[in-house]
Amino acid sequence: MIVGIVGGGQLARMMALAGYPLGLRFVVLDPARDACAGQVAAQILGEYDDVEALAELARRCDVITFDFENVPAVALERLSAEVPVAPNPQALASAQDRLSEKTLFRELGIGTPAFAAVDSLQQLEAAVEAIGLPAVLKTRRFGYDGKGQRVLRERAELAAAWDELGKYPLILEGFVDFTREVSIIAVRGRDGAIAFYPLTENRHEGGILRLSRAPCTDAAALDAQAQRHARALLEHLDYVGVLAIEFFDVGGTLIANEMAPRVHNSGHWTIEGAETSQFENHLRAVCGMSLGATQARGCSAMLNFIGRLPAPAAFLAEPGLHWHDYGKEARGGRKVGHATLRADEPQTLAAALSRLQPLVVAD
Amino acid sequence: MIVGIVGGGQLARMMALAGYPLGLRFVVLDPARDACAGQVAAQILGEYDDVEALAELARRCDVITFDFENVPAVALERLSAEVPVAPNPQALASAQDRLSEKTLFRELGIGTPAFAAVDSLQQLEAAVEAIGLPAVLKTRRFGYDGKGQRVLRERAELAAAWDELGKYPLILEGFVDFTREVSIIAVRGRDGAIAFYPLTENRHEGGILRLSRAPCTDAAALDAQAQRHARALLEHLDYVGVLAIEFFDVGGTLIANEMAPRVHNSGHWTIEGAETSQFENHLRAVCGMSLGATQARGCSAMLNFIGRLPAPAAFLAEPGLHWHDYGKEARGGRKVGHATLRADEPQTLAAALSRLQPLVVAD
Ligand SMILES: Nc1ncnc2c1ncn2[C@@H]1O[C@H](COP(=O)(O)OP(=O)(O)O)[C@@H](O)[C@H]1O
Ligand SMILES: Nc1ncnc2c1ncn2[C@@H]1O[C@H](COP(=O)(O)OP(=O)(O)O)[C@@H](O)[C@H]1O
Ligand SMILES: [Mg+2]
Ligand SMILES: [Mg+2]
Repeated sequence: MIVGIVGGGQLARMMALAGYPLGLRFVVLDPARDACAGQVAAQILGEYDDVEALAELARRCDVITFDFENVPAVALERLSAEVPVAPNPQALASAQDRLSEKTLFRELGIGTPAFAAVDSLQQLEAAVEAIGLPAVLKTRRFGYDGKGQRVLRERAELAAAWDELGKYPLILEGFVDFTREVSIIAVRGRDGAIAFYPLTENRHEGGILRLSRAPCTDAAALDAQAQRHARALLEHLDYVGVLAIEFFDVGGTLIANEMAPRVHNSGHWTIEGAETSQFENHLRAVCGMSLGATQARGCSAMLNFIGRLPAPAAFLAEPGLHWHDYGKEARGGRKVGHATLRADEPQTLAAALSRLQPLVVAD
Repeated sequence: MIVGIVGGGQLARMMALAGYPLGLRFVVLDPARDACAGQVAAQILGEYDDVEALAELARRCDVITFDFENVPAVALERLSAEVPVAPNPQALASAQDRLSEKTLFRELGIGTPAFAAVDSLQQLEAAVEAIGLPAVLKTRRFGYDGKGQRVLRERAELAAAWDELGKYPLILEGFVDFTREVSIIAVRGRDGAIAFYPLTENRHEGGILRLSRAPCTDAAALDAQAQRHARALLEHLDYVGVLAIEFFDVGGTLIANEMAPRVHNSGHWTIEGAETSQFENHLRAVCGMSLGATQARGCSAMLNFIGRLPAPAAFLAEPGLHWHDYGKEARGGRKVGHATLRADEPQTLAAALSRLQPLVVAD
């Protein structure tokens, strides 16, 4: 079976590495000549909305999936007429726009921050009036790693914020004073079977994920909430594949921040820290196989490498350390790799983490 | 760093899949147009002793290793003048010939079956006189998966056996009435650091490995013997990389059968069943990195798929089952894949194994 992946970044790369043992082959579509998944899979060089390139991908593959969700809906619809596309284009479309996404959350009874659409400075002022400050102004589409958003703390900032972001459709969200951030990685098979990984606790800096820890400790009640919300989304969207949902934990209640219709950075720990990785389970789902077991093996912490890799020696010398170099060139703000620490005991993990964390330098 | 691998079979393929996260790239040298490692790495199409092809491999790579040990010694020496070769050519040479191998075992105080070189029917008769029957007549070189060997039970068979195998240099070994077969996977880094995986118990049928289980239970005393023997070999050979040694357990004493200067089929369980796989640790050693932790995670059983893959559905539905399709065409006697069952508890493993073992059909 040949799997086509729209996007050839590290998610596609890790998917391919997880999929070869299943007997799968891969073709990625990416406009970058040095797309890092192109080092481990066949690549079609082309834009995500290039009709010719997409047609070639459909011709060469048995099923299509994504490492990247911002593929134009019209291109997706065209693809899905020729070859199965999973997750389905409607699910991707729901996640592409923060407004439709939060509206869907609300419809399904999933808590969200207060939010309002913003398409003019007047609307921004009205939204701030209704929601209060602090608040977060975000582009509705194409945001990632904290890009395209700005925290508003005072009314005096509104005009400048509008000048900066106003050329795009926007959403204003109430600023959530969260206890911590967590995410759930869920997966649904073609037969409707659903599996959940244990909740992950995430630490972001500057809007970009730095550290994930799983299983999230003392989280039985949170796990139940997260699973209920994930199940509602998976079933409503008739979803096939891995879906990630990011939540704010506000004193024991989960407020949904956003969802990602794909494998997710906060699930990278599953490669070594769970029985079956998110990458393998996504492929099992997309290719119509049974889902693999999702339980954790011990406890894990994942450190993201942003901009450049740290010197590897001290990391590789740490027992239970698993190194992931994405084969990318160093560049400020870019996710170039990660490392997962795995241990049977939380204390062992904490000790190793405190040795390694100071060695991670973000660029 | 670019790693060249002489041989492009499943061992090279699994090595490449384990090595990409370390930031390594791979070029394999293999004469087969459909070499299965060529699906996941660059390939030079050429014979293992093709001077041009080897020169190209040396030019394109920073270090050379093997998925296959029967590379002519002269070709290896030539390679090692241009680029580091690990394990070193002398170590490979020692393992290529069952006579030199067993002689080395003996020199290092490692028990072996009784053995004698056989280069004529007269010598065969003399060897049988000295060693007794049953005995095993083997080609000294190029044997694998039980090929090139014959068990002798009666004197009347000697002439026929000589007719069958006598065109090659031979060795006669006393037949060992073993309790079980076990193997150790050991690894030595460039800095001389040594690590051992827990002992694996192996079941062969028709000379070919069918089932491995690890960690081998109640084996503390055996582990100590195997580690002592492995250490003696690694240090004597100034070895870098993974070395596997197959033993007969005869009532608690280990008798060495053979060694493989490479990653080994009986170590495939380490992909999911140990903290760091044999493939990653071989690459870490060969590339001068620290070794990864070798302890087992729970208990594992590996089932080999010979000739063809079984229908995957029942396997994939089993929790803790990890499927490995090598991407090869079905062909009688060929290793086309394996599955590893991993569980935290031996009873869980045993139950799953008893469900799946009947589904494996060997061709
Ligand atoms: N409404 C909010 N309240 C508080 N913090 C927020 C809010 N929205 C975003 N953040 C912070 O910014 C991070 C990135 O925002 P997010 O909406 O997830 O964008 P991205 O798509 O770039 O990941 C979040 O993980 C969180 O730390
Ligand atoms: N001397 C022996 N006594 C008993 N069984 C043997 C002997 N030599 C080989 N065998 C059996 O045959 C299998 C394959 O033999 P081996 O020498 O390891 O060849 P190969 O290189 O093909 O693996 C062994 O694993 C063992 O089961
Ligand atoms: Mg986010
Ligand atoms: Mg053998």
